[in-house]
Amino acid sequence: MASGQRIAVVGATGAVGQTTLRLLKERNFPVRALRAFASARSEGKTVKFGDDDITVERLGADSFKDIDIALFSAGSDQSREFARAAVKAGAVVVDKSSAFRMNPEVPLIVPEINAAAAKAHRGILACPNCTTIVTVMPLKPLHDAGRLRRVIATSFQAVSGAGVAGVAALREETLAWARGEKIEPRHFPHQIAFNLIPHIDKFGADGYTGEEMKLVGEIRKILGLPELAISPTTVRVPVFTAHSIAINAETESKVTATAARAAFERFPGLRVVDDPAHNRYPMPLIAEGQDDCMVGRIREDLGCANALNFWVSGDQLRKGAALNGIQIAELLLS
Amino acid sequence: MASGQRIAVVGATGAVGQTTLRLLKERNFPVRALRAFASARSEGKTVKFGDDDITVERLGADSFKDIDIALFSAGSDQSREFARAAVKAGAVVVDKSSAFRMNPEVPLIVPEINAAAAKAHRGILACPNCTTIVTVMPLKPLHDAGRLRRVIATSFQAVSGAGVAGVAALREETLAWARGEKIEPRHFPHQIAFNLIPHIDKFGADGYTGEEMKLVGEIRKILGLPELAISPTTVRVPVFTAHSIAINAETESKVTATAARAAFERFPGLRVVDDPAHNRYPMPLIAEGQDDCMVGRIREDLGCANALNFWVSGDQLRKGAALNGIQIAELLLS
Repeated sequence: MASGQRIAVVGATGAVGQTTLRLLKERNFPVRALRAFASARSEGKTVKFGDDDITVERLGADSFKDIDIALFSAGSDQSREFARAAVKAGAVVVDKSSAFRMNPEVPLIVPEINAAAAKAHRGILACPNCTTIVTVMPLKPLHDAGRLRRVIATSFQAVSGAGVAGVAALREETLAWARGEKIEPRHFPHQIAFNLIPHIDKFGADGYTGEEMKLVGEIRKILGLPELAISPTTVRVPVFTAHSIAINAETESKVTATAARAAFERFPGLRVVDDPAHNRYPMPLIAEGQDDCMVGRIREDLGCANALNFWVSGDQLRKGAALNGIQIAELLLS
Repeated sequence: MASGQRIAVVGATGAVGQTTLRLLKERNFPVRALRAFASARSEGKTVKFGDDDITVERLGADSFKDIDIALFSAGSDQSREFARAAVKAGAVVVDKSSAFRMNPEVPLIVPEINAAAAKAHRGILACPNCTTIVTVMPLKPLHDAGRLRRVIATSFQAVSGAGVAGVAALREETLAWARGEKIEPRHFPHQIAFNLIPHIDKFGADGYTGEEMKLVGEIRKILGLPELAISPTTVRVPVFTAHSIAINAETESKVTATAARAAFERFPGLRVVDDPAHNRYPMPLIAEGQDDCMVGRIREDLGCANALNFWVSGDQLRKGAALNGIQIAELLLS
């Protein structure tokens, strides 16, 4: 058998799909053959895979013959419709949509945190939501250091989380402003340029959004803490690519700021950027394009003995999506 | 005696000073005479007061003869240098800087919350920091409903909080981006366009910024709760004028989301904007230019029985500064 994997990238024209194609090359993922799928709208377009132009094929139930690994980032409807067909055809699916994340038979994986859980897969492995990944990265070493009791997370989410249409909205709205024109909201429910929208995904009856409930359910599943108290607020901000989260975390036993910093420094995939004297702290601008999530502003709570405040920024398209997906695929090789 | 007050606006060319001049007219404040002061740099410029052009005078120790009320928004150094001279000359000073806020002899006033405390003034009354005002507005009715135990506040602060130079930085950086030019950070320690800066004011040894410690000390003083546990994170965002704060507040006795909503609705200066089904919630874009602070996204904490999450947006230049200052001056008239 020739070496390397036969890969399908599903949703290849999307923001995450294109980052997936770039990262497969960047990480020298052993690719023997690559096929790119998308909806009928994109059929016949080409996408770049290194120096190659790959013609985009229309996704169908018969797309997965002779595919080893299918990386899905086409949205949850497409995953629900086609992932099981891919498994039936013999592929292992790494799904970046929300379709299977909370399914108890599907492992939900952040490789630095729960790689061992991947072994139990039955053909589908799920990649968490972007905000979940960036939030849970510093929570794991903190939990190991002092056992998490309660988490309050407030997100500042980039427009790339809403895909290429989200990026285009911020870009076009801002350009309209620069031309002195009236800004017409595109894509988001309101103008995002120079604004904040505390509304991502649909609202539930209790007032929380789907995005907020993803954060709660997924963090609990990844950490194996089904009862963990999590209080989420998710907000869209006029930033292009990286998500940031302000976190207040309370632990059963005291973790000092110094101990937390050491635990964060040791954890793979996290980089401590916490040097206030030199104006160094995580920001979207420096997290963009980086594989590591950056954590900083690490300080002890002023009123709660066993709590810490910190601030994390991570590239939503990389660790928040495409990179984490490829890392899951890498687990399948080993 | 002719009716009306003789007013000095100190820092008249700044963002807050100009809003003060507009609001004095808008609110029909009884002005008999108005003088505008600023630094030597602005001497001889004119500022608008209704239809009148007022020539800006250079601020000096002898500026306050025949002034009844001096509204200071020139920065804490200027307040420290000149506020006592103004009092000596017979004026009452309403100071919007941080110079006297934590001085036990100086009342720190948000008129809807602690107007009665203003009576004890000895010539100087302090106006809280903009972020404090917008944050404390919903905290007061919630405290009255269930007694506050702990507050976790994460701010999303507009560039206007850094004055006209802050507004110019966001504007010029964004215009440079639109022209395809490299963005050079102006004014802020890093680029603010399409970025987030978790750093406002100077860092202290414990890792908190001056802005964060203002929030803690000032909220405690305004509410008369010197021991209240407050966990602050303050972040500068690429928004022009209104500040927003995500708040998690725990109370001694349970306050349901319904009861909190009712308490917010009854409180003067607060407007409940909380209709998710119609995509209505507070946002900087709709809070800008409004006197009321807007509160929404009111929901019970998922893991802490006596806690609530909510989200507040308020115009930083109005209720966050100039309006609150004029409301304090109005207390002096009654």
